[in-house]
Amino acid sequence: MTATEKLLARNEQYAQTFAPKQDGQPVKKVAILACMDARLDPARALGLEEGDAHVIRNAGGVVTHDALRSLAISQHLLGTEEIILIQHTDCGMQKFTDEELADLLEEHAGERAPFDGHAFGDLEDNLRESLRALQESPFLLKTDAVRGFVFDVESGLLRELHA
Amino acid sequence: MTATEKLLARNEQYAQTFAPKQDGQPVKKVAILACMDARLDPARALGLEEGDAHVIRNAGGVVTHDALRSLAISQHLLGTEEIILIQHTDCGMQKFTDEELADLLEEHAGERAPFDGHAFGDLEDNLRESLRALQESPFLLKTDAVRGFVFDVESGLLRELHA
Repeated sequence: MTATEKLLARNEQYAQTFAPKQDGQPVKKVAILACMDARLDPARALGLEEGDAHVIRNAGGVVTHDALRSLAISQHLLGTEEIILIQHTDCGMQKFTDEELADLLEEHAGERAPFDGHAFGDLEDNLRESLRALQESPFLLKTDAVRGFVFDVESGLLRELHA
Repeated sequence: MTATEKLLARNEQYAQTFAPKQDGQPVKKVAILACMDARLDPARALGLEEGDAHVIRNAGGVVTHDALRSLAISQHLLGTEEIILIQHTDCGMQKFTDEELADLLEEHAGERAPFDGHAFGDLEDNLRESLRALQESPFLLKTDAVRGFVFDVESGLLRELHA
């Protein structure tokens, strides 16, 4: 039995008490952009219920074109007005360089990957830069309620940083 | 008080019972790629605990370059071996076209967005195409345990589709 099959068995139990929501417009008008890290569960860490917020996640919680695509759709088409950006301590993105990843993937694939790794050195610098990228993006509708946080994987606490 | 501030107040409560995990390698060696939709909480829908799995999310749960970047980092650097792809019924991505989004964003920004919308028509066709894109990506390390599901926003159930 694979891990996937074990997880699927839990879905039937989940569905037994599932309460459908009215539509896809997030109730709290919030979109979260966060790292994919397994130790971070943005919904639990912020007490979110199903229906409350869009959750966008990628390696690092970085402001890629795809993250901007998702946030633009969230704001322009689905009515969200606030953005919560979450990066975290002990992030894997600080443990390699873009060049190392590109070489590793090329060795495996036999071709160069069509994407950069978006690795970073200093967490706080990276978070501030990400915040500015969101605040300055012309493709977002509301950028006055963009806030950035470091999630501490030891304590579970969010600490705010300002751009 | 903004929605963000109300959510942050819940984080202190969350941290009171937070149990830190050993490191960033997902315990179940699973990575999930899912839509950002507010009605879908992949962790709850699959009974995941903090530490179990990477969760990557974007508008649609589509296989963008950024999703592949995150999955490649997940598999090559952090040891995951299975991928669970989740798209869902009543997806907002079926309610506009890439051209409509591009025009809307250009009207707001005064310049053309550097990304496509990745809107889609038929959900099952899109999910099958996404599955194939994962299975055929040369940048992933393990593509024999990639499985795709439709999350039903009415019932909370996951239904498997095969490429």
